[in-house]
Amino acid sequence: MISENEVINKILEKDKEINLLGSIQSLLAWDQECLMPSDAVQWRSEQMGFISGFVHKKATEKSLGELVDKLKDEKLESDEEKSVKRLSERSWKEANSFPHDYVVEKSMFLSKAHSIWVESREKDNFSIFESTLEKIVDYAKKDSEYLGTCDHPYDNLLDIYEEGMTVKKVDALFNPIGDSISDLVKKISTAEKFDNSFLSTETPIDNQKELTNRLLKVMNYSKDRGRCDEAPHPFTIDLGPDDVRITTRYHKDDFKANLYGVIHEAGHALYELGSNDNIRATLLGGGVSLGIHESQSRFWENFVGKSLPAIEYLYSDLKELFPEMVGNRDAKTIYKALNCVEPSFIRIEADEVTYGLHIILRYRLEKLLIEGSIKVKDIPDLWRCESKKLLGIEPEKDKDGVLQDIHWSGGSFGYFPTYLMGNVYGAQFLDKIKDDLPEWDSTIREGNWSPILDWLKDKIHSVGSIYTPTNLLQRVTGETLSADSFIKYLYQKFSDIYKL
Amino acid sequence: MISENEVINKILEKDKEINLLGSIQSLLAWDQECLMPSDAVQWRSEQMGFISGFVHKKATEKSLGELVDKLKDEKLESDEEKSVKRLSERSWKEANSFPHDYVVEKSMFLSKAHSIWVESREKDNFSIFESTLEKIVDYAKKDSEYLGTCDHPYDNLLDIYEEGMTVKKVDALFNPIGDSISDLVKKISTAEKFDNSFLSTETPIDNQKELTNRLLKVMNYSKDRGRCDEAPHPFTIDLGPDDVRITTRYHKDDFKANLYGVIHEAGHALYELGSNDNIRATLLGGGVSLGIHESQSRFWENFVGKSLPAIEYLYSDLKELFPEMVGNRDAKTIYKALNCVEPSFIRIEADEVTYGLHIILRYRLEKLLIEGSIKVKDIPDLWRCESKKLLGIEPEKDKDGVLQDIHWSGGSFGYFPTYLMGNVYGAQFLDKIKDDLPEWDSTIREGNWSPILDWLKDKIHSVGSIYTPTNLLQRVTGETLSADSFIKYLYQKFSDIYKL
Repeated sequence: MISENEVINKILEKDKEINLLGSIQSLLAWDQECLMPSDAVQWRSEQMGFISGFVHKKATEKSLGELVDKLKDEKLESDEEKSVKRLSERSWKEANSFPHDYVVEKSMFLSKAHSIWVESREKDNFSIFESTLEKIVDYAKKDSEYLGTCDHPYDNLLDIYEEGMTVKKVDALFNPIGDSISDLVKKISTAEKFDNSFLSTETPIDNQKELTNRLLKVMNYSKDRGRCDEAPHPFTIDLGPDDVRITTRYHKDDFKANLYGVIHEAGHALYELGSNDNIRATLLGGGVSLGIHESQSRFWENFVGKSLPAIEYLYSDLKELFPEMVGNRDAKTIYKALNCVEPSFIRIEADEVTYGLHIILRYRLEKLLIEGSIKVKDIPDLWRCESKKLLGIEPEKDKDGVLQDIHWSGGSFGYFPTYLMGNVYGAQFLDKIKDDLPEWDSTIREGNWSPILDWLKDKIHSVGSIYTPTNLLQRVTGETLSADSFIKYLYQKFSDIYKL
Repeated sequence: MISENEVINKILEKDKEINLLGSIQSLLAWDQECLMPSDAVQWRSEQMGFISGFVHKKATEKSLGELVDKLKDEKLESDEEKSVKRLSERSWKEANSFPHDYVVEKSMFLSKAHSIWVESREKDNFSIFESTLEKIVDYAKKDSEYLGTCDHPYDNLLDIYEEGMTVKKVDALFNPIGDSISDLVKKISTAEKFDNSFLSTETPIDNQKELTNRLLKVMNYSKDRGRCDEAPHPFTIDLGPDDVRITTRYHKDDFKANLYGVIHEAGHALYELGSNDNIRATLLGGGVSLGIHESQSRFWENFVGKSLPAIEYLYSDLKELFPEMVGNRDAKTIYKALNCVEPSFIRIEADEVTYGLHIILRYRLEKLLIEGSIKVKDIPDLWRCESKKLLGIEPEKDKDGVLQDIHWSGGSFGYFPTYLMGNVYGAQFLDKIKDDLPEWDSTIREGNWSPILDWLKDKIHSVGSIYTPTNLLQRVTGETLSADSFIKYLYQKFSDIYKL
């Protein structure tokens, strides 16, 4: 029970229905991405449109608006009560910004767009997706217009994913990070190289699947409350308070795509599953923002999974499951290979250092697209050009460039920056957890990862969406958002690896 | 376009929404049976209750009732128009028979009942399921009450699955079938036995899966419009006009469970997928009744799949995929083994002769349960007693008896009789198709099964639900429902096998 306040409880009741419908919509999406037969796309898009319309009707119901209004005069005391006010106002405002028919039409369009993107990427042919992407960008611009005036039209889109975020704040955060990373990359480029080609040794898919099971076990992700399926692009999806599913993909010649995909997505799932009992299955349950979400997924993926102690722990599994890949190499050699810094095309496979540059690339292009300074048809070339500028390399194939990510096909503009914000939040949390868990290295090395989950659950997961990202960060670390910890982390880790 | 009549088109429009929601409900059910994590059952039941309630609201909307009423005065000419009238009246009447809260409550209850049945069956412990089944039987009785007066309370339940069916008609059909089967079983029991133990040779699951792919190919079931997953109890489910999925299960020591499960379910799916373009995705699309549905699934499973020419066709696949099982045996030996007549416990694995007795057993018990002459707690013993009477054997374990089938856990009473009706309809269709396709045997032997599907599609699938089962039978065969063809078929086939 969150509160005894009658208005609060009426709002929670109404939100429950929206939540039920939203989770049904998620099942439709999950099925479409993982399993749905190809010819079913038309009907699925009609189902999607229908449910979206119904969700929108529920979310804009006059009686809900009256309750949200009423709450303004209520005396609210607990953090939970105050957050019901904050979040219900926020969703009420957002839902009412959009005309009903627009919501339905957009949802139907996006459901079909996904299949078009899949085909375009498979065939490495941007022209298949081009006109669809044009329409999606128009929707995103329109979204921003509907959401009301702001300094930069991209601000409204950022705020959907990260409450309170603006272009001004992102620029202030990303510009120095970009400079620091470029500086570090330059230093690394002069250091002695080491071999990582053995990571492409072919490994049996069945053994990769076995590794998935072991990873999920050590991370304490229970199959009773989720599952792991295959999808072209890994993702996590919340189908209910006890049903948060992840996906991965298996490539014979790249076991690490699955390894780090699974750790990353399980990190999201654990956050989503970790809300306290009294708030789970309410609008206060689950992750507060995508930035905080990425702070969790990327925490596990990088700070835990790509650390030396983690590789030392996983070493016996790797040796058993992928004997040819490991060969006579020791854990340190594998650790270094897995942390090799090299400009590359695919974001989700990038090393920790250059990863941020991939985000900055997308952020710049999105901002220009939304403000209307560039056109969709020019994106493939602009992508190459930005990639050359930031990473020093340019993809020949569009599937290694503009077509690589699923986000735009789903209508998500303003989403990408949250990945880099996640690194930043995460590094601030990392400093804190290391203070609280001085046995950090040995805990990881011994495969006893529960204390880490317990800490994250206690500080972050359990409180769900009660606090804004900014407040949550303040509560956990006593700090405001700052890239210092992240930059310090990168320099320390990679100075050590590359003996800078 | 079915019609230019405005009322018809308004009804079709409203029905489309109900259809969209119904298919979403089916996805929730499919996911629950195939993939859903165990702890998600509570939330899933709430989703189910919510969607059921919404479907019920749509199906009982006053404006729909007014349209249905209006149609009574409209001059309708085509068969399509008349069937919109028939089917919309039928669903309007059915939906309005039930109070709204009852529908929601029942749906939530049944969603949870499924998991309880699964557990009870896995643990072979009827007491786990007993109180749930009691409540389900109460729902079924209540369903019949709500549906209005009739000669026997079971009549209303029969009519849900088979339009116009009554206890009187079923008795008149089943009693002589029961006698004929018993007579045939007796004759066979005195004939020379032959070995079928080699069918239990262990076969690799991967090879069974390969057989599934080949079967679906020869049957022309396209993966673009469906898929085959694993589930504890095989079933077919319609998730949209281009998304009809089947399930199967793989047992190492029983390759034929998958073999005939797949052929059976694909038979259902092909029927559901075969409606003409102008009626698909409307209330006239898809199968008209479960009896006709079973006539299709069991047609493929038995008349095609268990025939000698089919085994001759499949022989090379079986030899390649299951070499140890086949050994030096020829196709005729495998054919005879697959058609061995032996009383057994599990309905879906029964031979064609004794299968009907399994249905008669369930029919008798259901009738008695619904009229209130017997109690749920006595069912396991009554099952054993009836099994002894009909089949001459009694199951020790309840999972081989009362717990074997999924139907009751889903609230389906009145469903089982349609299996035997399916055999009867099917045999009448078989006589007719053999007249039209004199090359029947060679078509099957050569693996050219398309002419069979084309015939079924032309005569039965394409017209969807336009005609009542009785009218459809009349149109296709010129006959009324009669067990003669089925009995004649059984006697001919098994007299030949057993040299009676």
